[in-house]
Amino acid sequence: MKLWQKDTTSTAQLVEQFTTGNDRDFDLLMAAYDVKGSLAHTEMLAQVGLLTEAEKEQAHKGLHEILASIEAGTFTIAPDVEDVHSQVEMLLTEKIGDAGKKIHSGRSRNDQVAVDIKLFLRDQVLLIKDKATALFNLLQQLSEQHKNILLPGYTHFQVAMPSSFGLWFGAYAEGLLDDMEMLAAAYAITNKNPLGSGAGYGSSFPLNRTLTTQLLGFSAMHHNPINAQTSRGKTEKFVAAAVSAIAATLNKLSSDLCLYLCQNFAFVSFPETLTTGSSIMPHKKNPDIFELTRAKCNRLQSMPNELALLTTNLPSGYHRDMQLTKEILFPGIDTLVSCIDMLLFALPQITIKEDILNDEKYRYIYTVEAVNELVNKGIPFREAYKIIGNDVNEGKFHYENFKASNHTHEGSMGNLQTEAIKKEFEKVLTKF
Amino acid sequence: MKLWQKDTTSTAQLVEQFTTGNDRDFDLLMAAYDVKGSLAHTEMLAQVGLLTEAEKEQAHKGLHEILASIEAGTFTIAPDVEDVHSQVEMLLTEKIGDAGKKIHSGRSRNDQVAVDIKLFLRDQVLLIKDKATALFNLLQQLSEQHKNILLPGYTHFQVAMPSSFGLWFGAYAEGLLDDMEMLAAAYAITNKNPLGSGAGYGSSFPLNRTLTTQLLGFSAMHHNPINAQTSRGKTEKFVAAAVSAIAATLNKLSSDLCLYLCQNFAFVSFPETLTTGSSIMPHKKNPDIFELTRAKCNRLQSMPNELALLTTNLPSGYHRDMQLTKEILFPGIDTLVSCIDMLLFALPQITIKEDILNDEKYRYIYTVEAVNELVNKGIPFREAYKIIGNDVNEGKFHYENFKASNHTHEGSMGNLQTEAIKKEFEKVLTKF
Amino acid sequence: MKLWQKDTTSTAQLVEQFTTGNDRDFDLLMAAYDVKGSLAHTEMLAQVGLLTEAEKEQAHKGLHEILASIEAGTFTIAPDVEDVHSQVEMLLTEKIGDAGKKIHSGRSRNDQVAVDIKLFLRDQVLLIKDKATALFNLLQQLSEQHKNILLPGYTHFQVAMPSSFGLWFGAYAEGLLDDMEMLAAAYAITNKNPLGSGAGYGSSFPLNRTLTTQLLGFSAMHHNPINAQTSRGKTEKFVAAAVSAIAATLNKLSSDLCLYLCQNFAFVSFPETLTTGSSIMPHKKNPDIFELTRAKCNRLQSMPNELALLTTNLPSGYHRDMQLTKEILFPGIDTLVSCIDMLLFALPQITIKEDILNDEKYRYIYTVEAVNELVNKGIPFREAYKIIGNDVNEGKFHYENFKASNHTHEGSMGNLQTEAIKKEFEKVLTKF
Amino acid sequence: MKLWQKDTTSTAQLVEQFTTGNDRDFDLLMAAYDVKGSLAHTEMLAQVGLLTEAEKEQAHKGLHEILASIEAGTFTIAPDVEDVHSQVEMLLTEKIGDAGKKIHSGRSRNDQVAVDIKLFLRDQVLLIKDKATALFNLLQQLSEQHKNILLPGYTHFQVAMPSSFGLWFGAYAEGLLDDMEMLAAAYAITNKNPLGSGAGYGSSFPLNRTLTTQLLGFSAMHHNPINAQTSRGKTEKFVAAAVSAIAATLNKLSSDLCLYLCQNFAFVSFPETLTTGSSIMPHKKNPDIFELTRAKCNRLQSMPNELALLTTNLPSGYHRDMQLTKEILFPGIDTLVSCIDMLLFALPQITIKEDILNDEKYRYIYTVEAVNELVNKGIPFREAYKIIGNDVNEGKFHYENFKASNHTHEGSMGNLQTEAIKKEFEKVLTKF
Repeated sequence: MKLWQKDTTSTAQLVEQFTTGNDRDFDLLMAAYDVKGSLAHTEMLAQVGLLTEAEKEQAHKGLHEILASIEAGTFTIAPDVEDVHSQVEMLLTEKIGDAGKKIHSGRSRNDQVAVDIKLFLRDQVLLIKDKATALFNLLQQLSEQHKNILLPGYTHFQVAMPSSFGLWFGAYAEGLLDDMEMLAAAYAITNKNPLGSGAGYGSSFPLNRTLTTQLLGFSAMHHNPINAQTSRGKTEKFVAAAVSAIAATLNKLSSDLCLYLCQNFAFVSFPETLTTGSSIMPHKKNPDIFELTRAKCNRLQSMPNELALLTTNLPSGYHRDMQLTKEILFPGIDTLVSCIDMLLFALPQITIKEDILNDEKYRYIYTVEAVNELVNKGIPFREAYKIIGNDVNEGKFHYENFKASNHTHEGSMGNLQTEAIKKEFEKVLTKF
Repeated sequence: MKLWQKDTTSTAQLVEQFTTGNDRDFDLLMAAYDVKGSLAHTEMLAQVGLLTEAEKEQAHKGLHEILASIEAGTFTIAPDVEDVHSQVEMLLTEKIGDAGKKIHSGRSRNDQVAVDIKLFLRDQVLLIKDKATALFNLLQQLSEQHKNILLPGYTHFQVAMPSSFGLWFGAYAEGLLDDMEMLAAAYAITNKNPLGSGAGYGSSFPLNRTLTTQLLGFSAMHHNPINAQTSRGKTEKFVAAAVSAIAATLNKLSSDLCLYLCQNFAFVSFPETLTTGSSIMPHKKNPDIFELTRAKCNRLQSMPNELALLTTNLPSGYHRDMQLTKEILFPGIDTLVSCIDMLLFALPQITIKEDILNDEKYRYIYTVEAVNELVNKGIPFREAYKIIGNDVNEGKFHYENFKASNHTHEGSMGNLQTEAIKKEFEKVLTKF
Repeated sequence: MKLWQKDTTSTAQLVEQFTTGNDRDFDLLMAAYDVKGSLAHTEMLAQVGLLTEAEKEQAHKGLHEILASIEAGTFTIAPDVEDVHSQVEMLLTEKIGDAGKKIHSGRSRNDQVAVDIKLFLRDQVLLIKDKATALFNLLQQLSEQHKNILLPGYTHFQVAMPSSFGLWFGAYAEGLLDDMEMLAAAYAITNKNPLGSGAGYGSSFPLNRTLTTQLLGFSAMHHNPINAQTSRGKTEKFVAAAVSAIAATLNKLSSDLCLYLCQNFAFVSFPETLTTGSSIMPHKKNPDIFELTRAKCNRLQSMPNELALLTTNLPSGYHRDMQLTKEILFPGIDTLVSCIDMLLFALPQITIKEDILNDEKYRYIYTVEAVNELVNKGIPFREAYKIIGNDVNEGKFHYENFKASNHTHEGSMGNLQTEAIKKEFEKVLTKF
Repeated sequence: MKLWQKDTTSTAQLVEQFTTGNDRDFDLLMAAYDVKGSLAHTEMLAQVGLLTEAEKEQAHKGLHEILASIEAGTFTIAPDVEDVHSQVEMLLTEKIGDAGKKIHSGRSRNDQVAVDIKLFLRDQVLLIKDKATALFNLLQQLSEQHKNILLPGYTHFQVAMPSSFGLWFGAYAEGLLDDMEMLAAAYAITNKNPLGSGAGYGSSFPLNRTLTTQLLGFSAMHHNPINAQTSRGKTEKFVAAAVSAIAATLNKLSSDLCLYLCQNFAFVSFPETLTTGSSIMPHKKNPDIFELTRAKCNRLQSMPNELALLTTNLPSGYHRDMQLTKEILFPGIDTLVSCIDMLLFALPQITIKEDILNDEKYRYIYTVEAVNELVNKGIPFREAYKIIGNDVNEGKFHYENFKASNHTHEGSMGNLQTEAIKKEFEKVLTKF
């Protein structure tokens, strides 16, 4: 297979290959949404008198048949047909005759694409939301399950203070909660109706855009047609920003795991099916899936910038450049989903080492605790600090009282507030 | 002035200059927030019994005096003092004696910085919101004022269909409405309390984080201390994403204006005070302020990526790298504000050319209108299309009936829905 | 076709799909280079006594057969074989028995991949060099062909001074000359031998790396094995930087063309086969191929950053993350080549409008010429400037003497120095 | 000091502050180059007869006086003077009267800026070259000094094979060698003369650009004036690409050091003056300077992208946007230099732990060596592999023969080839 090299036998093909690229593959993802857009548009055309009721019924029958073929997986774009919109129109005209052509009154290719992309991305955002919710739930469950296992907390990559796997898993759960705010903003912009904006300057037909907004379940419309057009590119950037936010969280989680699997840490392990071993180097458990999650999440974090480069410095109005937003963003969404799926699959198989902190190299991790304990007994901070410091310098420092449950404030080791965080997560979900 | 070259006379200075850089300038912006954080922290310490009521009163008196000096502009960071937090502590200890040192119980430098940045950025987000609202209102006003002046609408940079300055100004107003969703997401994350997370692993003092959350007016807290720590970097990225979204809108607006000021378009003009002329080339009205707005908004669009580069692939826990988020984001916010200010200043001075569409090169801009008119008279679309096509080919095409008011659907030229968009804008504002 | 969604029926498949992705497609591109690397490696093994001469002959016979199958297009990677290296090894062992396994002495998968990528990218850089040379030659030819046709030169998007198509085409030719310096730097790093670096820490076999360096035609070797390993990622970034440089030049050329095809400029036109027209809007000649060239060249310009995100903050030593460099860079190289091919195809079909400058809106374009003419006659600059300024203000300014040949200095309109630039281009080519 | 907030008291000031920003600070860096450009330009004007010999002598005398004041640090740009070019002209006219004004014949502000930036960046590139050379030499020296100290080599962040500090330091030295190719490409483009390109469309004066090219020591000229103009932005991008390449190398070096200073590795240490300790946590040696080097090098790696965003999608011809290239690139160069200076200062103070590999967790690091040893004794690879594998599984694996000097091939532990790499470095230096 030649991945990206093509044979070209004619001028027309050369131009077509250059301009179309792999866009037809992305178009196929739009098919169902294209039909749904047409169902709403024709309903509206009938309502404003631009289609008869009979024409509308005919069109709906045909469109529903096409939708069924899409859902059955039998729909394809014929080699000589330009795009999904043409394919649907052609099929419809075959089925119902010239009435098929009437459904394009008051609509341009541009707003057809615009509404397809909104509907597709809205569903993709909801898919991401569901996946992120599943990961959130898993992380919370693991946080509770391992809440009493301690590990060293680092600052500046230096051993600093005791931490726990309860805190560690819980941190990524709450991190996803924060990311949901960005996803909700992305959802909000995907949930606005561009249909009826024509080629970006409106139409002289007396369309009822409020009706199509309702029929397609949009929460609002992009009123202004130039703005509806400009939302191509912007919508993708908002979704990319949300994908990038979640990706940054997964990148950090994977970075931690790659480190914790290193023999110098050895905090966690995974079964052989999830790591790449070496029979001759029994210590090797290469964390390929976490390295690749980390790496894929870097590609995802590059998307907002790539979309900015594509669109910046361009004046208003449609430019063909917009076509490439699909090949930037759509595979990215799938990558994010597959990274979450992989974590959902792998994380439950984690084995966590107990008694990590017993190792000599973590001995000073309790100094802050010891100072605080003296302060709590009434010794002034500066004096307590001096006492413990002396113990350390003279090699006499010991501390064996540490219990996670000494930490009681909101969110700390002994009080993870799993339920409170869950409630806030559920509250953010109501924005979708 | 040597902008970035420094004299260094000792090793310690060399290291200090390298590590501190211009961070003290940014620190000064934190001063008032640092004091406010200390006011809340000490109130809470007294409530949980770690300060006496008298100590708290003393501390509050001293802190209010420092706050007054900050607001009066007389507060500075002494050359030999490390940062704003040390400066405040030192001043307080000078004022109230050793009790000043007690206020640090249950708090680390890390969460002090974290809360300062949240409070600062929350105010900056609100400032951006106010500026964006002012620009939204201006754009809506200009849209109404010039609603009947037509200009050509372009697709693919090709003359396509009639547009209007009502649509054009209105598009950017509604664009800002969409951008507000991102700003609201940024606001949400700035509005969460990290205070009490210690160095990222909590504290063994029985802090009451709910109380400091209320006292500082946060809507919620970052419960998990690791997540509170990780919100350094993430908070900045969310704000940068929102700044970038607005910047993309201003970039497009400026790109349009640079084009429209070109003699080949000549759609608008500005007084000489706003353009750079040339006495010998009277046609030259260099749009420097719009070119620079366009360019500055590109720098702003690069911020999310710069922050991603800074933070990616780093495991959890504080890293000193985070310091640089300030020098990336803070000047960027100021740049955005100055760009909006410049547009608020310049746009009201715009002069718009009337009768643009009379020029011969726009003659075919009405063909779609003419076809639609025939369709509305009952002629099938394909036939109408043929009739007008023939007129064009035979040089007979004329169309003089165009009126913006023919366009009646929601958001179109004859029905701008300025009020409806304003209502939606006001609804988004309730999220702040 | 589901572009990026996959069915998965088992755990192993899930992990394999996640870790392998579409890497096998890229691997196929490596096949010939993998065999060439093995030819050199075995030659060297025989020379240092780790293979007998007979074993080497056997291995070479087998490897040449495999190479022939690759060149014939019949080589594939079997579904159950991990990658191209395993496939080649398996085929060789089938052909020559256990001797096939001996060829891996003193070599790891890591340096096998490293040398494959160097050899592949070196060839790709040479391909880009050839394509860029062809475009350079075409641009120079068009520059000479249209050297006397004038167009307005703009600064700040404002009509400024007379320019010519000789200058315009010639500028992009010389721009490519400058870009070749970056490509030469990329070539230099692809031309260094990593073979023999093992997994990044060398080998205890007494390899003769100087010999493989000669056999594979590398100009030098990466001596240090850690550096050889780190050149994964760096090599790709250097190539990406060169691709990005050329892409920036093509982006500007396309941006100009999209503008010049706009009715407000109408400086050039292309036949209908190269633009997308509209039968009803006869003025529309949508420049899709130039819009897409512009857009594709933006994706290309994002590659260096994407590679930086992938690799930054990672310590030394191989990480699986490196695998993704292929899916970032390799399709990008093909995109660049296809953009150049499209320009090679389209530019010769350009039609350039004559007498552009006769239009009234360019009338003041000659004011600088007129001033200079007076200066050349001995009138002091400031006085000449005042005379012409007055003429302009009083509407009396006329200037009809303009000839390109008045401009005589090196590189100017009347002295394009096509040959001198060509000589410099040829000089840069000697670096490859 | 308010870093980026400004008081504005009038409209003109508002516009000026917005358009000028901190550009005057950058302009000051151009002053000496601006004068040198004028010296060459006037020499040439005299040669082609546009200045008398006497006028030229006068001008040269004045310009040399101004140059002396710049070198003495007494030159400033007066508050009411627009930029450095105006300031120099004004001073010259004060000194020599109206002849000062004649020096602008055949020159525009645009090519004056262009030549200043080329000359400045050429010197900056040479400065970077010198700094990188110093770091290269230091790394080579440290490599030789510590060549026998072993450390574990990691792949996938997993303990893999023995490495040495000889290899480790040497890798970064050779990495800089590779980076020099990019710096040489940047040097090549800074070394081309744009003077004489006017505002981007040439001049009607009979300039002798070959002469100014020689006088200013450029190796060649940008012949084509449009291309000379477009080299604004491109030149900066080339330099940024080279800075970014070196920054990536320093980022990896710093990432390694932050890790190696972690207690879980503890491979190296630095004196207290170079780390931030904590009297109560004696194990803490925060590697702030290496964290900040890592972070600053990420900002540097973002520059090429920021410049791409600034310039992409813009048609040819000067745009004011170009002004911002200075504030992106110039501080970046200084940051790179300061990072190298910090490493030059810190690295010689490193203390390296001996006997690292004696730790139990590295015990299996010699398995590959043991296998190879058997292979060298004539046992077939697959059998040797099985023998050692069994030893490992049965807990019997021991290996005590390891010596760096067993590794003899080019660049390996026992044969670092420091001199060969140095010779190649010196060869690259001849390109400057």
